Amino acid sequence: MRFELQAECPDTGARAGLIHTGHGIIETPVFMPVGTQATVKGVMQSDLAEELDAKIILANTYHLFLRPGHEVIRELGGLHRFMSWPRAILTDSGGFQVFSLSDLRKITEEGVLFRSHLDGDEHMFTPESTVDVQLALGSDILMPLDECLEYPASHEAANQAMQRTVRWAETAYGYFERQAEDTGSASALFPIVQGSMFADLRRECASQLLALNAPGYAIGGLSVGEPRSLSLEMTEATTPLLPRDRPRYVMGVGMPEELAEYVARGVDMMDCVLPSRNARNGCLFTSGGRVIIKQARYRRDPEPLDANCQCITCRTYSRAYLRHLFQAGEMLFSTLATIHNLKYYLDIMRQMRQAILLGRFRDFLYNVRKPAVESS
Amino acid sequence: MRFELQAECPDTGARAGLIHTGHGIIETPVFMPVGTQATVKGVMQSDLAEELDAKIILANTYHLFLRPGHEVIRELGGLHRFMSWPRAILTDSGGFQVFSLSDLRKITEEGVLFRSHLDGDEHMFTPESTVDVQLALGSDILMPLDECLEYPASHEAANQAMQRTVRWAETAYGYFERQAEDTGSASALFPIVQGSMFADLRRECASQLLALNAPGYAIGGLSVGEPRSLSLEMTEATTPLLPRDRPRYVMGVGMPEELAEYVARGVDMMDCVLPSRNARNGCLFTSGGRVIIKQARYRRDPEPLDANCQCITCRTYSRAYLRHLFQAGEMLFSTLATIHNLKYYLDIMRQMRQAILLGRFRDFLYNVRKPAVESS
Repeated sequence: MRFELQAECPDTGARAGLIHTGHGIIETPVFMPVGTQATVKGVMQSDLAEELDAKIILANTYHLFLRPGHEVIRELGGLHRFMSWPRAILTDSGGFQVFSLSDLRKITEEGVLFRSHLDGDEHMFTPESTVDVQLALGSDILMPLDECLEYPASHEAANQAMQRTVRWAETAYGYFERQAEDTGSASALFPIVQGSMFADLRRECASQLLALNAPGYAIGGLSVGEPRSLSLEMTEATTPLLPRDRPRYVMGVGMPEELAEYVARGVDMMDCVLPSRNARNGCLFTSGGRVIIKQARYRRDPEPLDANCQCITCRTYSRAYLRHLFQAGEMLFSTLATIHNLKYYLDIMRQMRQAILLGRFRDFLYNVRKPAVESS
Repeated sequence: MRFELQAECPDTGARAGLIHTGHGIIETPVFMPVGTQATVKGVMQSDLAEELDAKIILANTYHLFLRPGHEVIRELGGLHRFMSWPRAILTDSGGFQVFSLSDLRKITEEGVLFRSHLDGDEHMFTPESTVDVQLALGSDILMPLDECLEYPASHEAANQAMQRTVRWAETAYGYFERQAEDTGSASALFPIVQGSMFADLRRECASQLLALNAPGYAIGGLSVGEPRSLSLEMTEATTPLLPRDRPRYVMGVGMPEELAEYVARGVDMMDCVLPSRNARNGCLFTSGGRVIIKQARYRRDPEPLDANCQCITCRTYSRAYLRHLFQAGEMLFSTLATIHNLKYYLDIMRQMRQAILLGRFRDFLYNVRKPAVESS
């Protein structure tokens, strides 16, 4: 894995680049659709590739570990082959899901003991085992096990979790390097900066993780309930410390209008369930604002969801038809809505990339911020 | 609407033909995927057209009347435009759903009074009103209101329902003809032969409906719980009485292995929820027999669902991946499974048509019947 920095905005931290992976080139800044259980809910892989031109998706290690099991996926040729997705895949470590979904977790220096949310079976995740799981999946970008705290957390608790996260990252990274050497894997592992909402802890974590000289870094533990301004503040406190020539990935963000804010702070990669989950719930993002499709005003609306969007949903169907599908509980709604919302996100990312390459990102950011200022 | 008879099997009643409609030419024998609520559940219209090459689909008048309402669909340019389906559409009269889904129905000579299964609102369907609804939808082929009985029914009850069905068909047909003349509609209305499981009533019904000189005829009231041999027997008692130069449509059949039996009895059109509903429930039809995808034997099965099938599901994914999606409750399973099952049905229809055109339908039928004989 290699990162090629192509352009930097002279006025903000925004950057455009290319991540070269064993499964294609990823143009950054990039938003990664979430494919938790080896599928982006409701969307065919062919539509992800052809309609959306997604270059990388995210899958969840916790879910795939439990079902169908990483050994099954390994036997079947790895996750790319299993789900027929020839492009890049990033997997998280499972840490976040263990802390948010599973029961009866017990954290020790060795790792996390937890019970599956599916059947209650007991499992242990260690820094080494989560690397093994992700290597079995064959991910292009792996994440090390980290300790995720709820918000708010005390400085002391955040410090302990951060220190443990650093120790686990060191263990995971060393283990990963040895495994990758043995197998000739072209994958990369990105250490995760933690530290809750304390800038000093974020900075300390980043500086400790830099010693690993990893090919990319992630910022985790955000979007856990804190005010959105705080998530941006923590990002801003961290990115300047991270290597300029490596990709930076903020995990689990953000709202459409926040994408530019993260990019302005030097973020290259993001992921979030928001566009796909909101789509399924009938909340659609458009260039004219949010559309809550169940509203009666759309019952006879012959217009496309977003006249400025070129996705198959907007090219083909009316708001009235989409509303009908939603009201009738038809699966096709989720498919069409998810394709649209993801296209909306990916288009924003492509526009930002273009703006950075053309030296116009400051204007882009100004235009994104203007409506927010005007409506405040 | 015009039917062009292209070939007849010298040994059976099988026929191949073309139905020319205002929305394209339909090659018969044809199986019509069911798109109850203006969507074939889980399948995008582009996949229906390009992947499956369906030339006609069926939509349910009852459901669309209740939601979103036929007036809404009329305002939005009719059902073809509403759902972005430029090919042919057949709609039923709503009679079957009124009898099977709705509450508190009261049948009079005028029509059927019923309560919506959605909100309990009272509505009336008459022979004229159901024609109006279907004209508002803009269907290519309409069905007149008929009285559908459960199985078993007494000869007397069946006779009364049949006689009423004939009177309603006469009313509907006359009304439809006047409306079509006024509007220049190119649609067609197919009277429905009823008579429960009594061959004498079926014959009497057919001979009365022939007086309408309709451009096509349907056989209804089958697949209501009777033994499958009886459904075939009733079909066999009816088709010889129907005009040779008009299409014959048996409503709501059948199992994959029955398709050839209906075609052998002179049936040109069929529809059934079976392939799509079974797909969603994890029952898949393949050239090697039924696959119940949840079975543990498929957990590590790298093979395509059906190596003889060219659908996107079989071209792209393994049984193990399909099983995983099913077990995980992922929507993509329903999409991939429905596409496959419909492809399986449509392929059988295309093979039969080819066999009829080449004078080889007898062999085709022999091969379909052989495994049934061998396993008995």
